[in-house]
Amino acid sequence: MIEIERKFLVTSEDYKKEANVKKRIVQGFLNSHPNRTVRVRIKADKGFLTVKGKSSANGTMRFEWEREIPLSEAESLLRLCEEGVISKVRYEVVCGAHTFEVDEFHGENEGLIVAEVELKNEDESFERPDWLGEEVTGQIKYYNSQLSKKPFNEWNE
Amino acid sequence: MIEIERKFLVTSEDYKKEANVKKRIVQGFLNSHPNRTVRVRIKADKGFLTVKGKSSANGTMRFEWEREIPLSEAESLLRLCEEGVISKVRYEVVCGAHTFEVDEFHGENEGLIVAEVELKNEDESFERPDWLGEEVTGQIKYYNSQLSKKPFNEWNE
Repeated sequence: MIEIERKFLVTSEDYKKEANVKKRIVQGFLNSHPNRTVRVRIKADKGFLTVKGKSSANGTMRFEWEREIPLSEAESLLRLCEEGVISKVRYEVVCGAHTFEVDEFHGENEGLIVAEVELKNEDESFERPDWLGEEVTGQIKYYNSQLSKKPFNEWNE
Repeated sequence: MIEIERKFLVTSEDYKKEANVKKRIVQGFLNSHPNRTVRVRIKADKGFLTVKGKSSANGTMRFEWEREIPLSEAESLLRLCEEGVISKVRYEVVCGAHTFEVDEFHGENEGLIVAEVELKNEDESFERPDWLGEEVTGQIKYYNSQLSKKPFNEWNE
């Protein structure tokens, strides 16, 4: 299927107060090429394998295929991944008709917080929470596959 | 799981007479790195996603994870794959207690025929059919992931 998503930086920690779901995520990449990423994810106590294609020119649309897999299999696959496993906490925050997923990165990406919202079509409008900052949709350096290779704490070097 | 397999060249076409199963396979790679290949396969009318790890030192053992997926999803994922989709016909030939999978390659790998046998342990003996030739277990150039990048008909160039 095609996912339509927009991604933003986050300007305060108020999302924590508004969140109704909080889950730990650990993920690695079997392939981190932006044209075809293959991601292994453990989210809370569930495993997932996800394939994403190349983004559309404006970065909003991207082919995405995901399948839940047993936790033990996800753990085995995670051991095969490229170096640079990502650890983050995801908060789900409802705002109007949409749910924002706010990812608070840890480890080598400590300090980075991004929010994503999934849309039904590219032109769909949505209510912006107060803590929503600059849009970074389509900026490849913010892809998790790239954060695993060049983490946030190396960006100013 | 860990797969234990040995791979051989094939010296005659007698396997065709002995085969009881014949299936067309089309496959591509979302990642063709020998340390972590991610394969999309359509075998007859079924789709599969397969992850393989690095081979053991002697090339016999390799981590392998496979999941059947809907044909339409496999077709979508195949379109994301790296260039060099592989087309082959697989014959299954029973010989003694084992089944040999004989892959007859087409397209850019026309002329290459290899046979694989899966073993329960590395020392397990097996009956050799007459058409079984030189062993090529662990030779990376015979990996399908490598045949997609450097096909058989370019080997003598």
